[in-house]
Parts: sequence; C-alpha cells; structure tokens
Amino acid sequence: MMNIKVIAFDADDTLWVNEPYFRETETAFCALFQDFMPLHSAERELLQTEIRNLPLYGYGIKGFTLSMIETALSITGGTLRADAVQRILELGKELLARPIELLEGVEETVVTLKERYRLVVATKGDLLDQERKMKNSGIDHHFHHIEIMSEKAEADYRKLIRHLDIKPEEFLMIGNSLKSDVLPVLALGGHAIHVPYHTTWAHEVVDHAIEHEHFRSVTSIREILPLL
Amino acid sequence: MMNIKVIAFDADDTLWVNEPYFRETETAFCALFQDFMPLHSAERELLQTEIRNLPLYGYGIKGFTLSMIETALSITGGTLRADAVQRILELGKELLARPIELLEGVEETVVTLKERYRLVVATKGDLLDQERKMKNSGIDHHFHHIEIMSEKAEADYRKLIRHLDIKPEEFLMIGNSLKSDVLPVLALGGHAIHVPYHTTWAHEVVDHAIEHEHFRSVTSIREILPLL
Repeated sequence: MMNIKVIAFDADDTLWVNEPYFRETETAFCALFQDFMPLHSAERELLQTEIRNLPLYGYGIKGFTLSMIETALSITGGTLRADAVQRILELGKELLARPIELLEGVEETVVTLKERYRLVVATKGDLLDQERKMKNSGIDHHFHHIEIMSEKAEADYRKLIRHLDIKPEEFLMIGNSLKSDVLPVLALGGHAIHVPYHTTWAHEVVDHAIEHEHFRSVTSIREILPLL
Repeated sequence: MMNIKVIAFDADDTLWVNEPYFRETETAFCALFQDFMPLHSAERELLQTEIRNLPLYGYGIKGFTLSMIETALSITGGTLRADAVQRILELGKELLARPIELLEGVEETVVTLKERYRLVVATKGDLLDQERKMKNSGIDHHFHHIEIMSEKAEADYRKLIRHLDIKPEEFLMIGNSLKSDVLPVLALGGHAIHVPYHTTWAHEVVDHAIEHEHFRSVTSIREILPLL
C-alpha cells in the first residue's frame, strides 16, 4: 500500500461500539410485543420495515425509531397501546444518549497514523448524532474533518475523493463493512482494509470472499500499522 | 458589496417552498386531537416539544415526526389510539415526499450569479432529505456543492468559510431567516441579504431591526442582482 495520502475511517463499529447498542434496543423493543409475536419474528419484521424505509428515512437512530413504531403498529394489528409508543420513543432517545466507547487500539493507531497521513472519518447516519459522537469520542482533533454521507456507494466515494483532491489510488478506507467500506472503494481503484466487528447489521452482510491486490483484512485495528 | 467570492443560499423558503408544507402538516396533526385540545393550544404544545427535542433530534422531518408522536401522547394523556399514530407516521412520510416548488425568480438569479461567483447551498435539516430536495430541484448543477449543517451558528459558518478557503468578507449569505442566515454571518464579518418569506417558523423569528453596513434586505430574490 504505497502512496496513500488520505486514510478514511468508518466510525460505527470501527472507531467505537455501535451495533451492539442497536441490538440491545431491538431486543428491548421485541420484548414489548412477546404476547403478539415471538422475538425472532418481531426482529425480522423490524428489519424488513427498516430496509423498506431506508430510501425515505436514510440511516440513523431517528429513522430507526420511526421504523420501530411502524413495526409495532403492524405487529399489534391496530391495538398498539399508548404506553408502548411512549416506551419506543424512550428507547430511541436512550440510544441517542449512549456514551461513546472507543474500540481497543483505536486511539494509538489514529495518533500514530496522523503523523504521516491526512485522516478523515467517513460515516453514514444522522448528521447531528454522528457529530455528537465524534465530539464526545475525545479523538476528534486527530481528524481533518468528518464526512457524514447519506449513502456509501461508489458515486458517494467518488465525490469524497474528488473533494479531498487526491487520486483514488491515494485513498485508503478502513472499516468493518465489506459492503459499505470495502467493495465500492475497490471498484473505484482505491485501497481498503477490512476490520471485522463481531456484530454486523444484517443489511450490511456480504457473503462472498474478496480477493484484490488493493485489499487486506485484519483482525484488529492494531494490525494496520505494519501494513503501511 | 465588493470582493464577494462565494455566495451561499439557504434552501428551505429561500430557494423553494417549505414552511407552508410544515404548517399544513401541523394543522392536519392538530385536527386529529380536536376532541382533546383546541387547535392553537395543540400547535403551541407541538412547538414546545420540537424546541425541547432540537438538541437531541436536530432539524428535519424525522425529528418533527417523532415530536408529533410525543406531543400526541401528551395531549391524549395516555389514551393515544393506534390509528392516530399510523396517521402521524403517514403525515411525516407525505411531508418527505412533497414535490419541490421553486420560488419565483430563483432560477434566473442563480443562473446569472453563477457566471461571476462560486455558489453553494447552506441548509439545516436531515441529510438524505435535503439531498433529495436539491436533486429534485432541477437547479443543483448550478451549485458547487451543498453544505448540510446541523446548526447555523457562528461556529458553523466559521467552519464553512474556512472550508471554502476564503475570508469572511468574501462570503455572502442569502436567506429568509434573520436568526440563521443573517446574524451569525454579520458577526463573523461576512455579508448577508435577507429575503423574507411570508411564513417563518416561530423558532426562527427575530423581533428587532438590523442595521449593518454588510446587510441588505430585499422583498424578492430578483432584487439581489442590482445590489452586486
């Protein structure tokens, strides 16, 4: 991996814990409707609602909360109670107020890399919420800026790379999602390092292996330094 | 107004219709609960909920929809019915699907100005929704880029101006909100033109007159060209 000028980090589940918080919220949500539907069916119902609403709501906790309410209406067949709606709103707000828990090795890696590269954060989600997490992370000053994207497809990375005023082969993306952080970047001629996280949202799962000369997979963010 | 290099336009109610759509939605929302509360009291209740939730939800339709549901729970004192929740979700989705209606004079003004200035859009709101509106406006190709901001305070404009790589006195903001588009820009040494719109959200209202050598107020966007 020669001539890299900018390294972009995904945020959720790459720099800090995220998906497990969503899972806990999902479990609490599904538990509210156990009299109507078994837990795993409610989870599937919620996932379908979320994916159906993505083009309209985009990523992030606010859309997720609205999708929980929509799912609750469907599960309860018109008998949804006010206290359950109240509880779902609270679940959403609790998720928005979760503290930031940096993943192991993140801070040292970022501190070392920033000496040699321009670092940015490239993430999906709600604008204000991602800014809040970045600010509360305590590592925001190591990054040149944070790019909050409505989608992480090829066109979005092309825009980001043009905006950074570099060539695709000078760009390295590091993240936990093969679908969002790796495949579109490789397709553009950029470099990507996959740092898998133990929990991945079903909508982000890629089930085939990737082999590419611009691609590496590591088990911990600490293994990135020796590669560069 | 000499030496202007970049002109930033606010989007909602400056380039296209927005607030009247919110008002219609608010009215439809309040009408759902007329048996519980008079219309204007429900409106006030909703506004208070929105303002209370701003630090957590930020601007945009998703947070507005969540605030409508929260207000409905409070208005109905625990007796909120499932069909009303359903209707509120629909009201939010309808608002997200509204077509873009450009304001009079916008297109000609933008087309003329782009010959001499770098034009950007600087707006608050939900990321995906503002991108959608920009894309559907038919005038997106006239702008260098769109900046979606979680807040429009002095610090946010300072960041934008630094990012544009210009001096504050080379920056002109055009918008309908004295609070968000004019005051913070003047405070930084930038220029601002106020184009009032007939409907302003209560939270954006400024009730004192502004006099400043970097400030102009016009009654239509068409009056901007002669000023430059």
